[in-house]
Amino acid sequence: MENNTATLSSTVTVITPEILLKHWQGHRALTRRVIAAFPEKELFNYSIGGMRPFARLAMEMIDLAGPGMQGFVTNEWDKIEEMPHHTGEGMPETKAELLELWDEITRVIDDLWGELTPHRFAETVVAFGQYENPVYSTILYFVDNEIHHRGQGYVYLRSLNIEPPFFWER
Amino acid sequence: MENNTATLSSTVTVITPEILLKHWQGHRALTRRVIAAFPEKELFNYSIGGMRPFARLAMEMIDLAGPGMQGFVTNEWDKIEEMPHHTGEGMPETKAELLELWDEITRVIDDLWGELTPHRFAETVVAFGQYENPVYSTILYFVDNEIHHRGQGYVYLRSLNIEPPFFWER
Repeated sequence: MENNTATLSSTVTVITPEILLKHWQGHRALTRRVIAAFPEKELFNYSIGGMRPFARLAMEMIDLAGPGMQGFVTNEWDKIEEMPHHTGEGMPETKAELLELWDEITRVIDDLWGELTPHRFAETVVAFGQYENPVYSTILYFVDNEIHHRGQGYVYLRSLNIEPPFFWER
Repeated sequence: MENNTATLSSTVTVITPEILLKHWQGHRALTRRVIAAFPEKELFNYSIGGMRPFARLAMEMIDLAGPGMQGFVTNEWDKIEEMPHHTGEGMPETKAELLELWDEITRVIDDLWGELTPHRFAETVVAFGQYENPVYSTILYFVDNEIHHRGQGYVYLRSLNIEPPFFWER
């Protein structure tokens, strides 16, 4: 029998590529609402405890997701140190620009997802030339990193007396 | 051929039960370090923007994880409204007690994981009598909720001038 499954350590399917995409995009839809909830000025300037403003955190998510998907498909990786969230250069300057870029990355993820073959998810990549992990694990890291920083955005919003969107709405 | 896989929407394996357990416990190990990083008093009292202190957030993670695992195995569910993180009753009173309880739940998860049969992950449960989702999705929610609240703990720590543990160390 032809076996087309990408067996990692078991033959049991729990989370498929389709579920993983939906999970990620669900989180990204929530993060978009958090970006939108910030006042224009505070999105780019507000900070607690010396941490980065939320626009910079959102830009990190964009820099991982877009170039990350390109890297999974092409095996060519940009350098983290040269990206907008890191250098500050090439950052969107308004909330509208940031949201537009966010939506563009949403389409990039959807478009490139289909180019990831089943066995690709189990292959090891050196993401951004630095982080050696299977593709599925790298994607989980992107999602975890987004939830982590978005949680920080919730504190920024609460401390600004702004009600954040419900965490469970995706 | 005997087919023992729990097919959800595809036959492609990306994330297996084994990977999901390791992923969850890796995050829980990091959260434990965040709890440990708080000073005793601030763990129970410190707050920003009217949010809950980190001990209460950690108790929510414990209340979901332990009774959640019991629920997956037995189909019997406690009520969220009666749990310590919600009522404040039965909360650990010291950091040492909270960490001890955390470690107990770590063992509960490991012990009960083996009782979840492969097809169990795809079955729908009504977690805590309220949240209707497949088991795998409910577990992902527990993990996401933990990352979300832990990210808030990072802001508390930073605003207290305490360096949090590295996010990528699990």
